[in-house]
Amino acid sequence: MTYCVAMCLDAGMIFASDSRTNAGVDQVSRFSKMRTFVREGERVIVSLSSGNLSITQNAVNILEQRVKVNDAHDNLRNVVSMFDVARLFGDALREVKSRDGPYLMQNNVDAGANFIVGGQVRGEPPRLFNVYSEGNFIETTADTCYFQTGETKYGKPIIDRVITRGSGLTDATKCTLVSFDSTMRSNISVGLPIDLLTYDTDAFRIRAQRRIEETDPYFQMIHAEWGEGLRRIFAQLPNPEW
Amino acid sequence: MTYCVAMCLDAGMIFASDSRTNAGVDQVSRFSKMRTFVREGERVIVSLSSGNLSITQNAVNILEQRVKVNDAHDNLRNVVSMFDVARLFGDALREVKSRDGPYLMQNNVDAGANFIVGGQVRGEPPRLFNVYSEGNFIETTADTCYFQTGETKYGKPIIDRVITRGSGLTDATKCTLVSFDSTMRSNISVGLPIDLLTYDTDAFRIRAQRRIEETDPYFQMIHAEWGEGLRRIFAQLPNPEW
Repeated sequence: MTYCVAMCLDAGMIFASDSRTNAGVDQVSRFSKMRTFVREGERVIVSLSSGNLSITQNAVNILEQRVKVNDAHDNLRNVVSMFDVARLFGDALREVKSRDGPYLMQNNVDAGANFIVGGQVRGEPPRLFNVYSEGNFIETTADTCYFQTGETKYGKPIIDRVITRGSGLTDATKCTLVSFDSTMRSNISVGLPIDLLTYDTDAFRIRAQRRIEETDPYFQMIHAEWGEGLRRIFAQLPNPEW
Repeated sequence: MTYCVAMCLDAGMIFASDSRTNAGVDQVSRFSKMRTFVREGERVIVSLSSGNLSITQNAVNILEQRVKVNDAHDNLRNVVSMFDVARLFGDALREVKSRDGPYLMQNNVDAGANFIVGGQVRGEPPRLFNVYSEGNFIETTADTCYFQTGETKYGKPIIDRVITRGSGLTDATKCTLVSFDSTMRSNISVGLPIDLLTYDTDAFRIRAQRRIEETDPYFQMIHAEWGEGLRRIFAQLPNPEW
């Protein structure tokens, strides 16, 4: 399993992903699920992947290779919008799945794979997309400004309670780490380290990118204070009279 | 969908279930999912059901009818342990599914159905079981003192954080309502009213049974205070320095 979350706010964007992959309980490994493609001053593209690792890695390899080849075709460097970027990710997923899907199906291997992909291309505001396993995709709106993939449920309530489009990146960072803390507490298939990236609107360069390990003092503090705070407000709730 | 939770604590037991059933979004109804069987001074049995409503209702009908017939066979009134009660529920599920299952399968109707069943029969401590759709079952232990069924994830973190076997019934009641509040906030297929029942160890009668409607002032208070408290502790978390 995996947990990825990304938010598209007025102030900027945040992307975060865990690093645990597993194929059964005895095949647990670390793989970063975050990829970035940056042309400073011109475009910043960030993707988070979940699902079948071979499918998502292959799709990203196709996209990166096409940038290097610098052919006449659309690629991450030359398309003019994040909409086009989302289409590139969808097409790459379909390409890999049409190649590998039938072989996976023969052994009942789940070929499900998807991306959260967002960023900003000069000429338009930051945009965030959720690219489904079939290659189709949706975009955030003013009402729904974030996407999650993987083990989404445990970490969703806190986002729903504190994040709006107008939230700042500092609150978004805190909320993202609380969301990961809640998820990791309830599901061992999601694990540290967390890759976390923030982007300021119209900066066209990454603001901060950080890998949060077990020993990270800020995350340890969040973990302790949040748990303690929850128990405190629970204790303060009045008792029922019945 | 459904949300049911039950806890088996040293002090007693708590059972709670929502009342929303749906077969598609345009077939939403109210059905209580809680059934009780009480012989004061001798036994208290409570069941919570989830899954296919026709299967669980039929299974309960079989069990209740056999009590009335008062035959020589095992039934809820004459078995000597909660273990036997759990077996009766498992057998009833299998009986209904062997009768109706093939017809449901013809139309791809999900026949999945299960029970949380617990209580106390004189001669042994309170016990709580999770009866799976196949009729097999597990029992709570000192380490894991609660079961959930249905839409379990949103409401799980708060239980994991505050409830232990040594918790009192007042805390268990508060925690259960917070757990329902979190679930209903994130999943519209779980809805009020909540049926809530508490039982004191060795009482052999129900302590309190309450139906919590939209207008219940205590639940409204829990909903408001919990949300407010979460936002308050979130705001109090120190900001990252990066």
